[in-house]
Amino acid sequence: MIILKIGGGIAINIQAIAEDLKKLQRRPGFEKIVVVHGANAIRDRIARDLNRPTKTITSPGGVSSVYTDAAAMEVFLMAYPGVANTTLVSCLQHTGIPAVGLTGVDGALLQARRKKALYALEGAKQKLITDSYTGRIVSVNTTLLTLLLDNGFVPVVSPPALSEDGEMVNVENDTVVTMLAQALHADTIISLFEAPGFLKDANTPSSVLPRLNENLLETYTSSAQGRMKRKVMSALDALKTGVTKIYWGDGRVQNPISSLLEGNGTIISASEL
Amino acid sequence: MIILKIGGGIAINIQAIAEDLKKLQRRPGFEKIVVVHGANAIRDRIARDLNRPTKTITSPGGVSSVYTDAAAMEVFLMAYPGVANTTLVSCLQHTGIPAVGLTGVDGALLQARRKKALYALEGAKQKLITDSYTGRIVSVNTTLLTLLLDNGFVPVVSPPALSEDGEMVNVENDTVVTMLAQALHADTIISLFEAPGFLKDANTPSSVLPRLNENLLETYTSSAQGRMKRKVMSALDALKTGVTKIYWGDGRVQNPISSLLEGNGTIISASEL
Repeated sequence: MIILKIGGGIAINIQAIAEDLKKLQRRPGFEKIVVVHGANAIRDRIARDLNRPTKTITSPGGVSSVYTDAAAMEVFLMAYPGVANTTLVSCLQHTGIPAVGLTGVDGALLQARRKKALYALEGAKQKLITDSYTGRIVSVNTTLLTLLLDNGFVPVVSPPALSEDGEMVNVENDTVVTMLAQALHADTIISLFEAPGFLKDANTPSSVLPRLNENLLETYTSSAQGRMKRKVMSALDALKTGVTKIYWGDGRVQNPISSLLEGNGTIISASEL
Repeated sequence: MIILKIGGGIAINIQAIAEDLKKLQRRPGFEKIVVVHGANAIRDRIARDLNRPTKTITSPGGVSSVYTDAAAMEVFLMAYPGVANTTLVSCLQHTGIPAVGLTGVDGALLQARRKKALYALEGAKQKLITDSYTGRIVSVNTTLLTLLLDNGFVPVVSPPALSEDGEMVNVENDTVVTMLAQALHADTIISLFEAPGFLKDANTPSSVLPRLNENLLETYTSSAQGRMKRKVMSALDALKTGVTKIYWGDGRVQNPISSLLEGNGTIISASEL
Protein backbone atom coordinates (compact mmCIF):
# COMPACT_ATOMS: atom_id res chain seq x y z
CA MET A 1 0.00 0.00 0.00
CA ILE A 2 1.48 3.28 -1.18
CA ILE A 3 0.57 6.89 -0.48
CA LEU A 4 1.70 9.12 -3.37
CA LYS A 5 1.93 12.79 -2.48
CA ILE A 6 2.01 15.21 -5.43
CA GLY A 7 3.10 18.71 -4.48
CA GLY A 8 1.14 21.78 -5.56
CA GLY A 9 4.03 23.66 -7.18
CA ILE A 10 3.60 25.28 -10.58
CA ALA A 11 6.25 23.15 -12.31
CA ILE A 12 4.91 19.74 -11.21
CA ASN A 13 4.33 17.63 -14.34
CA ILE A 14 1.09 15.77 -13.66
CA GLN A 15 1.05 14.30 -17.17
CA ALA A 16 4.45 12.66 -16.61
CA ILE A 17 3.35 11.43 -13.18
CA ALA A 18 0.16 9.89 -14.60
CA GLU A 19 2.02 8.13 -17.41
CA ASP A 20 4.66 6.78 -15.04
CA LEU A 21 2.02 5.58 -12.59
CA LYS A 22 0.26 3.74 -15.42
CA LYS A 23 3.49 1.92 -16.30
CA LEU A 24 4.09 1.00 -12.64
CA GLN A 25 0.53 -0.21 -12.05
CA ARG A 26 1.39 -3.94 -12.18
CA ARG A 27 4.50 -3.63 -10.08
CA PRO A 28 4.23 -5.26 -6.63
CA GLY A 29 3.14 -2.70 -4.05
CA PHE A 30 1.31 -0.58 -6.59
CA GLU A 31 -1.92 -2.62 -6.47
CA LYS A 32 -3.32 -0.22 -3.91
CA ILE A 33 -2.42 3.43 -4.05
CA VAL A 34 -3.90 6.61 -2.63
CA VAL A 35 -2.88 9.93 -4.18
CA VAL A 36 -2.80 13.12 -2.08
CA HIS A 37 -2.17 16.38 -3.89
CA GLY A 38 -1.52 20.03 -3.18
CA ALA A 39 -2.58 23.09 -5.18
CA ASN A 40 -0.73 26.01 -3.62
CA ALA A 41 0.44 27.56 -6.90
CA ILE A 42 -3.11 27.48 -8.34
CA ARG A 43 -4.52 28.80 -5.07
CA ASP A 44 -2.11 31.71 -4.95
CA ARG A 45 -2.80 32.61 -8.59
CA ILE A 46 -6.60 32.56 -8.12
CA ALA A 47 -6.27 34.48 -4.84
CA ARG A 48 -4.22 37.15 -6.61
CA ASP A 49 -6.61 37.34 -9.57
CA LEU A 50 -9.55 37.71 -7.17
CA ASN A 51 -7.70 40.37 -5.24
CA ARG A 52 -7.78 38.21 -2.13
CA PRO A 53 -4.04 37.49 -1.89
CA THR A 54 -3.00 34.60 0.34
CA LYS A 55 -2.25 35.98 3.80
CA THR A 56 -0.04 34.44 6.43
CA ILE A 57 -0.06 34.78 10.18
CA THR A 58 2.72 34.21 12.68
CA SER A 59 2.05 32.40 15.92
CA PRO A 60 3.41 33.79 19.21
CA GLY A 61 5.99 30.95 18.92
CA GLY A 62 7.19 32.36 15.59
CA VAL A 63 5.73 29.74 13.24
CA SER A 64 4.04 31.21 10.19
CA SER A 65 1.07 29.61 8.43
CA VAL A 66 -1.58 30.47 5.85
CA TYR A 67 -4.46 32.53 7.25
CA THR A 68 -7.65 30.87 6.02
CA ASP A 69 -10.64 33.10 6.76
CA ALA A 70 -14.02 32.43 5.04
CA ALA A 71 -12.99 34.31 1.87
CA ALA A 72 -9.69 32.41 1.70
CA MET A 73 -11.52 29.10 2.29
CA GLU A 74 -13.62 29.82 -0.78
CA VAL A 75 -10.45 30.35 -2.83
CA PHE A 76 -9.08 27.15 -1.29
CA LEU A 77 -12.13 25.23 -2.56
CA MET A 78 -11.78 26.75 -6.03
CA ALA A 79 -8.16 25.59 -6.23
CA TYR A 80 -7.98 22.22 -4.40
CA PRO A 81 -11.17 20.22 -5.08
CA GLY A 82 -12.09 22.53 -7.97
CA VAL A 83 -9.29 23.06 -10.48
CA ALA A 84 -6.45 20.85 -9.20
CA ASN A 85 -8.34 17.71 -8.19
CA THR A 86 -10.61 17.56 -11.24
CA THR A 87 -7.72 18.24 -13.63
CA LEU A 88 -5.52 15.59 -11.98
CA VAL A 89 -8.33 13.00 -12.02
CA SER A 90 -9.01 13.73 -15.73
CA CYS A 91 -5.35 13.28 -16.49
CA LEU A 92 -5.17 9.98 -14.59
CA GLN A 93 -8.39 8.72 -16.18
CA HIS A 94 -7.05 9.56 -19.62
CA THR A 95 -3.96 7.42 -19.06
CA GLY A 96 -6.22 4.55 -17.94
CA ILE A 97 -5.99 4.88 -14.17
CA PRO A 98 -9.45 4.56 -12.53
CA ALA A 99 -9.12 7.66 -10.37
CA VAL A 100 -11.80 9.08 -8.08
CA GLY A 101 -11.36 12.58 -6.65
CA LEU A 102 -12.22 13.13 -3.00
CA THR A 103 -11.87 15.77 -0.33
CA GLY A 104 -11.73 15.06 3.37
CA VAL A 105 -15.40 16.00 3.47
CA ASP A 106 -16.49 13.10 1.22
CA GLY A 107 -17.61 10.17 3.32
CA ALA A 108 -16.39 12.26 6.31
CA LEU A 109 -12.97 10.95 5.39
CA LEU A 110 -10.85 13.49 7.26
CA GLN A 111 -12.37 14.65 10.51
CA ALA A 112 -10.79 17.72 12.04
CA ARG A 113 -11.07 19.97 15.02
CA ARG A 114 -11.27 23.60 13.95
CA LYS A 115 -9.03 26.04 15.79
CA LYS A 116 -11.81 28.39 16.78
CA ALA A 117 -9.49 30.84 18.44
CA LEU A 118 -5.81 31.38 17.94
CA TYR A 119 -3.31 34.10 18.68
CA ALA A 120 -1.21 35.77 16.03
CA LEU A 121 1.51 38.35 16.27
CA GLU A 122 0.63 41.80 14.99
CA GLY A 123 3.86 43.71 15.35
CA ALA A 124 4.79 43.27 19.00
CA LYS A 125 1.19 42.64 20.08
CA GLN A 126 -0.87 39.45 20.13
CA LYS A 127 -4.19 39.47 18.36
CA LEU A 128 -7.00 36.95 18.88
CA ILE A 129 -8.24 35.45 15.61
CA THR A 130 -11.64 33.71 15.63
CA ASP A 131 -12.45 33.49 11.92
CA SER A 132 -9.78 31.02 10.89
CA TYR A 133 -10.93 27.88 9.09
CA THR A 134 -7.89 25.81 9.89
CA GLY A 135 -7.77 22.73 11.98
CA ARG A 136 -6.07 19.60 13.13
CA ILE A 137 -7.07 16.17 11.84
CA VAL A 138 -8.40 14.11 14.73
CA SER A 139 -9.47 10.98 12.87
CA VAL A 140 -9.51 9.28 9.49
CA ASN A 141 -12.63 7.38 8.44
CA THR A 142 -11.33 4.71 6.10
CA THR A 143 -14.72 3.19 5.09
CA LEU A 144 -14.98 5.02 1.77
CA LEU A 145 -11.26 4.70 0.92
CA THR A 146 -11.22 0.98 1.65
CA LEU A 147 -14.35 0.43 -0.45
CA LEU A 148 -12.77 2.23 -3.40
CA LEU A 149 -9.37 0.53 -3.02
CA ASP A 150 -10.93 -2.94 -2.71
CA ASN A 151 -12.76 -2.31 -5.97
CA GLY A 152 -9.73 -1.23 -7.95
CA PHE A 153 -10.20 2.55 -7.81
CA VAL A 154 -7.42 5.03 -7.08
CA PRO A 155 -8.63 7.66 -4.59
CA VAL A 156 -7.20 11.14 -5.23
CA VAL A 157 -7.50 13.12 -2.01
CA SER A 158 -7.12 16.78 -1.11
CA PRO A 159 -8.18 18.93 1.84
CA PRO A 160 -10.41 20.44 3.20
CA ALA A 161 -11.32 18.25 6.15
CA LEU A 162 -14.70 18.31 7.93
CA SER A 163 -15.09 19.76 11.43
CA GLU A 164 -17.50 18.38 14.01
CA ASP A 165 -19.67 21.46 13.33
CA GLY A 166 -19.83 20.67 9.61
CA GLU A 167 -17.34 23.34 8.64
CA MET A 168 -14.74 22.85 5.94
CA VAL A 169 -11.28 23.35 7.40
CA ASN A 170 -7.84 23.67 5.90
CA VAL A 171 -5.40 21.09 7.26
CA GLU A 172 -1.72 20.50 6.60
CA ASN A 173 -1.33 18.27 3.56
CA ASP A 174 1.78 16.56 4.93
CA THR A 175 -0.27 15.60 7.98
CA VAL A 176 -3.01 14.25 5.68
CA VAL A 177 -0.38 11.99 4.12
CA THR A 178 0.89 10.74 7.48
CA MET A 179 -2.59 10.19 8.91
CA LEU A 180 -3.74 8.32 5.81
CA ALA A 181 -0.60 6.17 5.83
CA GLN A 182 -1.24 5.26 9.44
CA ALA A 183 -4.97 4.60 9.05
CA LEU A 184 -4.51 2.49 5.90
CA HIS A 185 -1.36 0.71 7.15
CA ALA A 186 0.67 1.94 4.19
CA ASP A 187 4.30 0.86 4.19
CA THR A 188 5.53 3.37 1.59
CA ILE A 189 5.17 7.10 1.03
CA ILE A 190 6.34 8.60 -2.26
CA SER A 191 6.47 12.38 -2.26
CA LEU A 192 7.07 14.40 -5.42
CA PHE A 193 7.88 18.10 -5.20
CA GLU A 194 9.89 20.85 -6.88
CA ALA A 195 13.35 19.71 -5.83
CA PRO A 196 15.45 16.67 -6.70
CA GLY A 197 15.18 15.28 -3.14
CA PHE A 198 16.19 16.35 0.36
CA LEU A 199 18.81 19.03 -0.05
CA LYS A 200 21.54 19.37 2.54
CA ASP A 201 21.75 22.99 1.46
CA ALA A 202 18.32 24.30 0.43
CA ASN A 203 19.88 26.52 -2.26
CA THR A 204 22.07 23.86 -3.88
CA PRO A 205 20.15 21.32 -5.99
CA SER A 206 23.23 19.14 -6.22
CA SER A 207 23.32 18.70 -2.45
CA VAL A 208 20.70 15.90 -2.50
CA LEU A 209 21.19 13.37 0.27
CA PRO A 210 20.45 10.00 -1.37
CA ARG A 211 19.79 8.19 1.91
CA LEU A 212 18.53 9.24 5.27
CA ASN A 213 17.48 7.28 8.31
CA GLU A 214 15.42 8.24 11.31
CA ASN A 215 18.40 9.36 13.36
CA LEU A 216 19.89 11.49 10.60
CA LEU A 217 16.47 12.98 9.87
CA GLU A 218 16.10 13.90 13.52
CA THR A 219 19.23 16.04 13.27
CA TYR A 220 17.69 18.02 10.42
CA THR A 221 14.47 19.01 12.21
CA SER A 222 16.23 21.99 13.74
CA SER A 223 18.12 23.16 10.65
CA ALA A 224 15.40 22.61 7.99
CA GLN A 225 13.40 25.69 7.07
CA GLY A 226 9.69 26.39 6.43
CA ARG A 227 7.94 23.75 4.36
CA MET A 228 10.91 21.40 4.43
CA LYS A 229 10.86 21.48 8.23
CA ARG A 230 7.21 20.38 8.18
CA LYS A 231 8.09 17.62 5.70
CA VAL A 232 10.90 16.36 7.90
CA MET A 233 8.65 16.32 10.97
CA SER A 234 5.86 14.54 9.08
CA ALA A 235 8.33 11.97 7.81
CA LEU A 236 9.49 11.28 11.35
CA ASP A 237 5.86 10.86 12.44
CA ALA A 238 5.21 8.48 9.55
CA LEU A 239 8.24 6.32 10.39
CA LYS A 240 7.01 6.10 13.99
CA THR A 241 3.62 4.76 12.89
CA GLY A 242 4.59 1.87 10.65
CA VAL A 243 5.78 3.34 7.36
CA THR A 244 9.08 1.68 6.44
CA LYS A 245 10.14 3.62 3.32
CA ILE A 246 9.69 7.25 2.32
CA TYR A 247 10.85 8.48 -1.09
CA TRP A 248 11.33 12.16 -1.83
CA GLY A 249 11.91 13.16 -5.42
CA ASP A 250 11.44 15.53 -8.31
CA GLY A 251 7.89 15.95 -9.65
CA ARG A 252 9.04 18.09 -12.59
CA VAL A 253 10.84 15.39 -14.59
CA GLN A 254 9.85 12.56 -16.94
CA ASN A 255 9.24 9.17 -15.24
CA PRO A 256 9.37 10.85 -11.84
CA ILE A 257 8.32 7.83 -9.78
CA SER A 258 10.42 5.18 -11.60
CA SER A 259 13.40 7.50 -11.49
CA LEU A 260 12.96 8.06 -7.76
CA LEU A 261 12.61 4.33 -7.06
CA GLU A 262 15.86 3.81 -9.00
CA GLY A 263 17.67 6.08 -6.59
CA ASN A 264 17.33 9.57 -8.05
CA GLY A 265 16.15 11.36 -4.95
CA THR A 266 16.16 10.67 -1.25
CA ILE A 267 15.19 7.39 0.40
CA ILE A 268 14.34 7.64 4.05
CA SER A 269 13.97 4.52 6.14
CA ALA A 270 13.33 3.74 9.77
CA SER A 271 16.31 1.49 10.28
CA GLU A 272 19.98 2.00 9.63
CA LEU A 273 20.76 1.29 5.95
CA MET B 1 -34.40 5.02 -6.80
CA ILE B 2 -34.58 8.81 -6.86
CA ILE B 3 -32.53 11.44 -8.67
CA LEU B 4 -32.66 14.74 -6.77
CA LYS B 5 -31.69 17.76 -8.83
CA ILE B 6 -30.77 20.89 -6.87
CA GLY B 7 -30.66 24.03 -8.98
CA GLY B 8 -27.72 26.42 -8.88
CA GLY B 9 -29.67 29.60 -8.15
CA ILE B 10 -28.51 32.01 -5.48
CA ALA B 11 -31.63 31.61 -3.29
CA ILE B 12 -31.58 27.80 -3.12
CA ASN B 13 -31.58 26.78 0.56
CA ILE B 14 -29.21 23.82 0.73
CA GLN B 15 -29.46 23.68 4.53
CA ALA B 16 -33.24 23.21 4.34
CA ILE B 17 -32.83 20.61 1.60
CA ALA B 18 -30.27 18.64 3.62
CA GLU B 19 -32.45 18.66 6.76
CA ASP B 20 -35.52 17.59 4.82
CA LEU B 21 -33.61 14.81 3.08
CA LYS B 22 -32.41 13.54 6.45
CA LYS B 23 -36.01 13.34 7.70
CA LEU B 24 -37.10 11.50 4.55
CA GLN B 25 -34.21 9.04 4.60
CA ARG B 26 -36.26 6.11 5.92
CA ARG B 27 -39.21 6.70 3.63
CA PRO B 28 -39.71 4.03 0.94
CA GLY B 29 -37.99 5.05 -2.27
CA PHE B 30 -35.38 7.15 -0.47
CA GLU B 31 -33.07 4.21 0.29
CA LYS B 32 -31.09 5.00 -2.84
CA ILE B 33 -30.69 8.56 -3.99
CA VAL B 34 -28.31 10.38 -6.29
CA VAL B 35 -28.03 14.17 -6.00
CA VAL B 36 -27.16 16.29 -9.05
CA HIS B 37 -26.53 19.99 -8.48
CA GLY B 38 -25.96 23.19 -10.38
CA ALA B 39 -23.80 26.19 -9.46
CA ASN B 40 -24.63 28.85 -12.02
CA ALA B 41 -24.99 31.70 -9.50
CA ILE B 42 -21.62 30.90 -7.91
CA ARG B 43 -20.03 30.48 -11.36
CA ASP B 44 -21.31 33.84 -12.58
CA ARG B 45 -20.13 35.60 -9.42
CA ILE B 46 -16.63 34.12 -9.62
CA ALA B 47 -16.49 34.83 -13.37
CA ARG B 48 -17.39 38.45 -12.71
CA ASP B 49 -14.90 38.78 -9.83
CA LEU B 50 -12.16 37.31 -12.04
CA ASN B 51 -13.11 39.66 -14.84
CA ARG B 52 -13.95 36.69 -17.05
CA PRO B 53 -17.73 37.25 -17.27
CA THR B 54 -19.82 34.31 -18.48
CA LYS B 55 -20.27 34.61 -22.24
CA THR B 56 -23.05 33.14 -24.31
CA ILE B 57 -23.12 32.19 -27.96
CA THR B 58 -26.10 31.80 -30.26
CA SER B 59 -26.29 28.88 -32.67
CA PRO B 60 -27.32 29.49 -36.29
CA GLY B 61 -30.66 27.98 -35.22
CA GLY B 62 -31.12 30.74 -32.64
CA VAL B 63 -30.47 28.70 -29.46
CA SER B 64 -28.20 30.46 -26.98
CA SER B 65 -25.85 28.61 -24.65
CA VAL B 66 -22.92 29.33 -22.34
CA TYR B 67 -19.58 29.68 -24.19
CA THR B 68 -17.08 27.55 -22.30
CA ASP B 69 -13.56 28.24 -23.55
CA ALA B 70 -10.53 27.09 -21.52
CA ALA B 71 -10.65 30.14 -19.23
CA ALA B 72 -14.39 29.64 -18.62
CA MET B 73 -13.82 25.92 -17.96
CA GLU B 74 -11.42 26.86 -15.19
CA VAL B 75 -14.09 29.09 -13.62
CA PHE B 76 -16.55 26.23 -14.08
CA LEU B 77 -14.26 23.93 -12.08
CA MET B 78 -13.87 26.54 -9.34
CA ALA B 79 -17.66 26.81 -8.98
CA TYR B 80 -19.07 23.32 -9.58
CA PRO B 81 -16.73 20.70 -8.09
CA GLY B 82 -14.89 23.38 -6.08
CA VAL B 83 -17.19 25.63 -4.06
CA ALA B 84 -20.69 24.23 -4.72
CA ASN B 85 -20.04 20.49 -4.50
CA THR B 86 -17.78 20.60 -1.45
CA THR B 87 -20.11 22.98 0.40
CA LEU B 88 -23.18 20.84 -0.38
CA VAL B 89 -21.42 17.62 0.67
CA SER B 90 -20.31 19.26 3.95
CA CYS B 91 -23.85 20.38 4.60
CA LEU B 92 -25.26 16.89 3.90
CA GLN B 93 -22.56 15.23 6.01
CA HIS B 94 -23.32 17.57 8.89
CA THR B 95 -27.00 16.55 8.90
CA GLY B 96 -25.91 12.89 8.94
CA ILE B 97 -26.23 11.99 5.26
CA PRO B 98 -23.20 9.97 4.03
CA ALA B 99 -22.59 12.11 0.95
CA VAL B 100 -19.72 11.68 -1.52
CA GLY B 101 -19.04 14.43 -4.05
CA LEU B 102 -18.25 13.41 -7.61
CA THR B 103 -17.86 14.96 -11.03
CA GLY B 104 -18.47 13.15 -14.29
CA VAL B 105 -14.70 12.69 -14.48
CA ASP B 106 -14.53 10.52 -11.33
CA GLY B 107 -14.60 6.87 -12.27
CA ALA B 108 -15.22 8.13 -15.84
CA LEU B 109 -18.82 8.44 -14.73
CA LEU B 110 -20.06 10.76 -17.48
CA GLN B 111 -18.43 10.19 -20.84
CA ALA B 112 -18.95 12.90 -23.40
CA ARG B 113 -18.09 13.81 -26.92
CA ARG B 114 -16.63 17.27 -27.11
CA LYS B 115 -18.02 19.57 -29.79
CA LYS B 116 -14.67 20.37 -31.35
CA ALA B 117 -16.13 22.77 -33.86
CA LEU B 118 -19.38 24.65 -33.78
CA TYR B 119 -20.86 27.65 -35.52
CA ALA B 120 -22.10 30.72 -33.69
CA LEU B 121 -23.80 33.84 -34.96
CA GLU B 122 -21.72 36.99 -34.85
CA GLY B 123 -24.12 39.65 -36.02
CA ALA B 124 -25.39 38.35 -39.35
CA LYS B 125 -22.29 36.23 -39.96
CA GLN B 126 -21.46 32.71 -38.82
CA LYS B 127 -18.21 32.18 -36.96
CA LEU B 128 -16.45 28.84 -36.46
CA ILE B 129 -15.57 28.18 -32.81
CA THR B 130 -12.99 25.51 -32.06
CA ASP B 131 -12.06 26.28 -28.45
CA SER B 132 -15.33 25.33 -26.81
CA TYR B 133 -15.21 22.79 -24.00
CA THR B 134 -18.81 21.73 -24.23
CA GLY B 135 -20.09 18.34 -25.19
CA ARG B 136 -22.83 15.80 -25.33
CA ILE B 137 -22.97 12.88 -22.90
CA VAL B 138 -22.60 9.64 -24.85
CA SER B 139 -22.55 7.17 -21.98
CA VAL B 140 -22.87 6.79 -18.25
CA ASN B 141 -20.53 4.40 -16.44
CA THR B 142 -22.53 3.27 -13.43
CA THR B 143 -19.81 1.12 -11.77
CA LEU B 144 -18.74 3.75 -9.24
CA LEU B 145 -22.28 5.02 -8.56
CA THR B 146 -23.63 1.50 -8.01
CA LEU B 147 -20.75 0.67 -5.68
CA LEU B 148 -21.44 3.76 -3.59
CA LEU B 149 -25.23 3.31 -3.58
CA ASP B 150 -24.98 -0.37 -2.62
CA ASN B 151 -22.84 0.64 0.33
CA GLY B 152 -25.19 3.28 1.67
CA PHE B 153 -23.47 6.40 0.31
CA VAL B 154 -25.28 9.28 -1.37
CA PRO B 155 -23.39 10.35 -4.52
CA VAL B 156 -23.51 14.10 -5.15
CA VAL B 157 -22.75 14.68 -8.83
CA SER B 158 -21.94 17.72 -10.92
CA PRO B 159 -20.39 18.26 -14.36
CA PRO B 160 -17.85 18.39 -15.99
CA ALA B 161 -17.92 15.17 -17.99
CA LEU B 162 -14.84 13.48 -19.48
CA SER B 163 -14.19 13.43 -23.22
CA GLU B 164 -12.54 10.55 -25.05
CA ASP B 165 -9.42 12.73 -25.32
CA GLY B 166 -9.32 13.23 -21.54
CA GLU B 167 -10.69 16.76 -21.67
CA MET B 168 -13.13 18.12 -19.14
CA VAL B 169 -16.30 19.25 -20.87
CA ASN B 170 -19.34 21.19 -19.77
CA VAL B 171 -22.59 19.31 -20.34
CA GLU B 172 -26.22 20.28 -19.74
CA ASN B 173 -27.14 19.46 -16.15
CA ASP B 174 -30.73 18.55 -17.05
CA THR B 175 -29.32 15.99 -19.49
CA VAL B 176 -27.07 14.63 -16.72
CA VAL B 177 -30.21 14.06 -14.64
CA THR B 178 -32.04 12.28 -17.47
CA MET B 179 -29.03 10.14 -18.43
CA LEU B 180 -28.40 9.13 -14.80
CA ALA B 181 -32.08 8.30 -14.29
CA GLN B 182 -32.02 6.08 -17.35
CA ALA B 183 -28.70 4.36 -16.54
CA LEU B 184 -29.66 3.72 -12.91
CA HIS B 185 -33.29 2.81 -13.66
CA ALA B 186 -34.60 5.56 -11.42
CA ASP B 187 -38.38 5.85 -11.27
CA THR B 188 -38.52 9.33 -9.74
CA ILE B 189 -36.88 12.69 -10.44
CA ILE B 190 -37.26 15.50 -7.91
CA SER B 191 -36.11 18.88 -9.18
CA LEU B 192 -35.78 21.91 -6.91
CA PHE B 193 -35.29 25.36 -8.39
CA GLU B 194 -36.13 29.01 -7.84
CA ALA B 195 -39.84 28.85 -8.65
CA PRO B 196 -42.81 27.17 -6.96
CA GLY B 197 -43.23 24.69 -9.82
CA PHE B 198 -44.03 24.81 -13.53
CA LEU B 199 -45.55 28.20 -14.18
CA LYS B 200 -48.16 28.57 -16.91
CA ASP B 201 -47.06 32.19 -17.09
CA ALA B 202 -43.31 32.51 -16.36
CA ASN B 203 -43.85 35.88 -14.64
CA THR B 204 -46.72 34.84 -12.37
CA PRO B 205 -45.65 32.64 -9.43
CA SER B 206 -49.29 31.85 -8.66
CA SER B 207 -49.74 30.24 -12.08
CA VAL B 208 -48.24 26.90 -10.94
CA LEU B 209 -49.72 23.93 -12.74
CA PRO B 210 -50.08 21.24 -10.04
CA ARG B 211 -50.28 18.33 -12.47
CA LEU B 212 -48.94 17.70 -15.93
CA ASN B 213 -48.81 14.62 -18.07
CA GLU B 214 -46.74 13.76 -21.08
CA ASN B 215 -49.28 15.07 -23.58
CA LEU B 216 -49.77 18.37 -21.78
CA LEU B 217 -46.02 18.77 -21.38
CA GLU B 218 -45.58 18.24 -25.10
CA THR B 219 -47.78 21.28 -25.77
CA TYR B 220 -45.47 23.44 -23.62
CA THR B 221 -42.22 22.62 -25.43
CA SER B 222 -42.95 25.33 -27.98
CA SER B 223 -44.13 28.03 -25.59
CA ALA B 224 -41.61 27.49 -22.75
CA GLN B 225 -38.62 29.83 -22.79
CA GLY B 226 -34.87 29.41 -22.23
CA ARG B 227 -34.01 27.18 -19.28
CA MET B 228 -37.58 26.10 -18.74
CA LYS B 229 -37.75 24.88 -22.33
CA ARG B 230 -34.71 22.69 -21.70
CA LYS B 231 -36.30 21.39 -18.51
CA VAL B 232 -39.52 20.50 -20.33
CA MET B 233 -37.62 18.68 -23.06
CA SER B 234 -35.47 16.79 -20.53
CA ALA B 235 -38.61 15.79 -18.61
CA LEU B 236 -40.14 14.40 -21.79
CA ASP B 237 -36.96 12.43 -22.47
CA ALA B 238 -36.97 11.08 -18.91
CA LEU B 239 -40.60 9.93 -19.17
CA LYS B 240 -39.73 8.11 -22.39
CA THR B 241 -36.93 6.15 -20.71
CA GLY B 242 -38.71 4.68 -17.72
CA VAL B 243 -39.12 7.48 -15.17
CA THR B 244 -42.71 7.46 -13.94
CA LYS B 245 -42.86 10.56 -11.72
CA ILE B 246 -41.15 13.94 -11.96
CA TYR B 247 -41.61 16.54 -9.23
CA TRP B 248 -40.75 20.20 -9.79
CA GLY B 249 -40.75 22.46 -6.77
CA ASP B 250 -39.32 25.35 -4.84
CA GLY B 251 -35.78 24.96 -3.50
CA ARG B 252 -35.95 28.20 -1.52
CA VAL B 253 -38.43 27.11 1.18
CA GLN B 254 -38.32 25.06 4.38
CA ASN B 255 -39.01 21.31 3.95
CA PRO B 256 -38.76 21.70 0.19
CA ILE B 257 -38.93 18.00 -0.70
CA SER B 258 -41.69 17.01 1.77
CA SER B 259 -43.71 20.01 0.73
CA LEU B 260 -43.32 19.12 -2.94
CA LEU B 261 -44.31 15.49 -2.34
CA GLU B 262 -47.41 16.77 -0.52
CA GLY B 263 -48.50 18.57 -3.65
CA ASN B 264 -46.88 22.02 -3.44
CA GLY B 265 -45.35 22.17 -6.86
CA THR B 266 -45.83 20.34 -10.14
CA ILE B 267 -46.16 16.58 -10.52
CA ILE B 268 -45.48 15.28 -14.00
CA SER B 269 -46.33 11.72 -14.91
CA ALA B 270 -46.19 9.60 -18.01
CA SER B 271 -49.78 8.43 -17.94
CA GLU B 272 -53.03 10.37 -17.74
CA LEU B 273 -53.80 11.26 -14.11
